[in-house]
Amino acid sequence: MAVTMYYGSVPVMQQLLAGLNGVLDKAEAHATAKKWDPAVVLNTRFYPDMFTLARQVRQVCEHAMAPARIAGIELPKNPDLDSTFAEMKARISRTADLLKSVQPAQMDGQEGKTITIPMGGQPREFKAQNYLYHVALPNFYFHTTTAYNILRHLGVELGKRDFMGPPPA
Amino acid sequence: MAVTMYYGSVPVMQQLLAGLNGVLDKAEAHATAKKWDPAVVLNTRFYPDMFTLARQVRQVCEHAMAPARIAGIELPKNPDLDSTFAEMKARISRTADLLKSVQPAQMDGQEGKTITIPMGGQPREFKAQNYLYHVALPNFYFHTTTAYNILRHLGVELGKRDFMGPPPA
Repeated sequence: MAVTMYYGSVPVMQQLLAGLNGVLDKAEAHATAKKWDPAVVLNTRFYPDMFTLARQVRQVCEHAMAPARIAGIELPKNPDLDSTFAEMKARISRTADLLKSVQPAQMDGQEGKTITIPMGGQPREFKAQNYLYHVALPNFYFHTTTAYNILRHLGVELGKRDFMGPPPA
Repeated sequence: MAVTMYYGSVPVMQQLLAGLNGVLDKAEAHATAKKWDPAVVLNTRFYPDMFTLARQVRQVCEHAMAPARIAGIELPKNPDLDSTFAEMKARISRTADLLKSVQPAQMDGQEGKTITIPMGGQPREFKAQNYLYHVALPNFYFHTTTAYNILRHLGVELGKRDFMGPPPA
């Protein structure tokens, strides 16, 4: 396994997306058992100016598109529909499919490619490698962790193993 | 900037450790202004079986030793003293110094080296590259994010920019 942008991002994103999918399964089962309105769970946030659980999951999927963006693959349109667990999980599934479609060779040699993304409403340019390591991955992890923390805080029985997802074979 | 284990870990860990240091500065100032006991803040957790804020910071520093561990540098003994903000910040400072001491060449070619770390009380072996991408980095980010989330939840005025720390020059 070479040290490349691909191997430093795609496999671990796949692992953690699978983890997040399992975390949402447990959250949904917990909500059903407690007769909680799923919308209340998906709209939970840690503070009034933080994102809801649903938006955390959306952000995870947004940042998980980075490898495909660097590879030059056309990105799917992900509508802002996330009012049910099923919609959240469908979004994760589409993102996992996108990651699966990225081939290592499509990212090789793209380290210096200019990537333009909107930040705070303004387009910002990054070299692909900086974008991956200093923008996409920290944000991907931030939102994956925050989604998990919100559910832990609500009492859903989860452990670090759920967060981490299945380790690579 | 080559794609190496070094460039995929050390600069972003330095960036986020500096972020965490600033986050703790703001937390301490907030606690002082509100006349909160710092120990209460440092012992806050999201759920009874989750780690306290202080332990989250300890874990961040533990996982940030990964590059030095791979480089074969002797690791500092970090005593489990973390009952004050000053002790937390001193730990972060020692960890930042350790990361600064790692030279890219010390990690090059070590991708397949066996790294043994205790997990759940048992020694577990990983190839260095898997250890870095699938153990150390996800855990580093997990605990950095959770420390930030605990403080956001307490009402400390922080934004994503504080979490992210100063971007690389």
